Amino acid sequence: MANLERTKCELDRGQVESFIQCLLRAKRVFALGAGRSGLVARAFAMRIMHLGLNVYVVGETITPSLQPEDVLVAVSGSGETDLVVGAASIAKRAGAKIAAVTSFPDSRLGRLADVVVVLPGRAKTETISEYVERELAGEHASLAPLGTLFEISAMVFLDGVIAALMHLLKKNEQDLLKRHANVQ
Amino acid sequence: MANLERTKCELDRGQVESFIQCLLRAKRVFALGAGRSGLVARAFAMRIMHLGLNVYVVGETITPSLQPEDVLVAVSGSGETDLVVGAASIAKRAGAKIAAVTSFPDSRLGRLADVVVVLPGRAKTETISEYVERELAGEHASLAPLGTLFEISAMVFLDGVIAALMHLLKKNEQDLLKRHANVQ
Amino acid sequence: MANLERTKCELDRGQVESFIQCLLRAKRVFALGAGRSGLVARAFAMRIMHLGLNVYVVGETITPSLQPEDVLVAVSGSGETDLVVGAASIAKRAGAKIAAVTSFPDSRLGRLADVVVVLPGRAKTETISEYVERELAGEHASLAPLGTLFEISAMVFLDGVIAALMHLLKKNEQDLLKRHANVQ
Amino acid sequence: MANLERTKCELDRGQVESFIQCLLRAKRVFALGAGRSGLVARAFAMRIMHLGLNVYVVGETITPSLQPEDVLVAVSGSGETDLVVGAASIAKRAGAKIAAVTSFPDSRLGRLADVVVVLPGRAKTETISEYVERELAGEHASLAPLGTLFEISAMVFLDGVIAALMHLLKKNEQDLLKRHANVQ
Repeated sequence: MANLERTKCELDRGQVESFIQCLLRAKRVFALGAGRSGLVARAFAMRIMHLGLNVYVVGETITPSLQPEDVLVAVSGSGETDLVVGAASIAKRAGAKIAAVTSFPDSRLGRLADVVVVLPGRAKTETISEYVERELAGEHASLAPLGTLFEISAMVFLDGVIAALMHLLKKNEQDLLKRHANVQ
Repeated sequence: MANLERTKCELDRGQVESFIQCLLRAKRVFALGAGRSGLVARAFAMRIMHLGLNVYVVGETITPSLQPEDVLVAVSGSGETDLVVGAASIAKRAGAKIAAVTSFPDSRLGRLADVVVVLPGRAKTETISEYVERELAGEHASLAPLGTLFEISAMVFLDGVIAALMHLLKKNEQDLLKRHANVQ
Repeated sequence: MANLERTKCELDRGQVESFIQCLLRAKRVFALGAGRSGLVARAFAMRIMHLGLNVYVVGETITPSLQPEDVLVAVSGSGETDLVVGAASIAKRAGAKIAAVTSFPDSRLGRLADVVVVLPGRAKTETISEYVERELAGEHASLAPLGTLFEISAMVFLDGVIAALMHLLKKNEQDLLKRHANVQ
Repeated sequence: MANLERTKCELDRGQVESFIQCLLRAKRVFALGAGRSGLVARAFAMRIMHLGLNVYVVGETITPSLQPEDVLVAVSGSGETDLVVGAASIAKRAGAKIAAVTSFPDSRLGRLADVVVVLPGRAKTETISEYVERELAGEHASLAPLGTLFEISAMVFLDGVIAALMHLLKKNEQDLLKRHANVQ
């Protein structure tokens, strides 16, 4: 909870507004992440669909090719996950916008991105290589192993974005419920 | 291959035409199946997306609620898989059309469906209960265990439907390639 | 954050201990949930794998049949999702233990379960039917639509369980990193 | 069907035996593929699980890190899909064996692999670049667009491998049914 409090305090309003504008301007939103960050990206995509926007998850069955009017929302704590960086590079070359959610704006993902929202992960002052070193050395506080803090912050942040979009698009919960899957 | 030959011979042209018309008339196509039949349903959904039609896979992240103008393509050899029958019942109540691909037109799925395409599975003359009994007794020819023959027939049949849709919609391979995922 | 604070205060220690014991005694853990709760269940399953326990996600490709020594961890805010209740019933009949994470201990899922951990969702005092009614009426606070509060609480709670298991099994982050997927 | 007939005729017995030995010697099997080839890889993985071998699908929730005693079964018609080649490279560096199913033994995937099974795709005589060119030019026979012929051949071939493994491991259909998911 202390980490979430920190996330709230340190969140850059300008970044958040750019992120939301990027979503609203896009023709379609594509969500991307590996591992648990990928599950957080999907939880976000599900709500984006409930809002009635066009959205896809990279790697799922019916995901079409990214086009220049699309935005790729890429979630990666380190910003260095090969799968995510590789996909973001291809999306960039295809002309799509990249909106990154990461702890490291100077990571490969961060540098590729048009918009970056920085969320504190383990320790906001450490560099990527320190982070990776510490991870390899197993020195992280055991109470929240690996990317846990980032993943929870990302889920809470992205749910906040949904709340903002509901307000901006004048949608209420009933509107969302209409699109909520009835067959699962 | 003998089984595929049999599938080709026994396929009912009227059923196939109704199936294709059902797809063309629908606002959106939803694909459904459990286990390996579910993978076949997804392989079909991917090509439907390549064709530019609106399609979703039941159970994936961004699948919205089924509406009356939609069609649910349900793939199940026995037509008795609980997951599939349950989902088809809900879809039916929601007013959607059901197009079933099964070996057993008299199964629960078959009876729910608006359109049924019958594909031979193990033995076209056996009843569902004989089929289930034989399965439990492990008496099936070991060369194609469980639903293997049905699953392969279903994949080949549904790829034939794609070919027919390409022709009817005047799409060529290049059109499909444009939508083929560029980021995976 | 107020909701997470409430979750922390109201969490029943006895329930949490039973939940953890249930996981430790099981031969294999199966994770289950629909929609966003399903994504939370998967995020939990991934960490259980990192810990070196045997774990599967219901509905994924290589998930085997549930056996009597297994435990099914079912995540559902309302405890009434058909897919989850249906699967839990089958697991129960197969002799497996059911450990439920829900806001409603008196729901169908709650009543099926051997162990229930209650997490506050929208309003801990409302009954299931009030909850469903309010949902249908779209009267929920728009800032956290549908099951959002429950899903975040469930993710945070289950990550706490992982921390407890790391301690009990004397695993550190390096142990987890060894099993972390190297190919994604 | 003509294509399946050709597959049957041209299949290299030595390759098939090496492929099967590779599976039997591995501690764990990892299945990999992108798009429809990925669905075929999963259909194979499901049966491998039914046989009682240890198997995972790359990209699914509970897939651990690849180790030197493992084998990666990579399915790719062109053998050039970035996702598959990237993952196979990492697996190779991790010391795992690579067993490729492809139409092009000289592709990047083919060259990485310890064992290759060649299945005819569009035209066995064309080179990869001709194949890609023809794809881009949309000149393929419209009856089986893109990788359809390869995917069906791969599914039938891999189901043949399952039949061979059942025979070698002395498993019958009842053994498989015991592991078949009872909760879906």
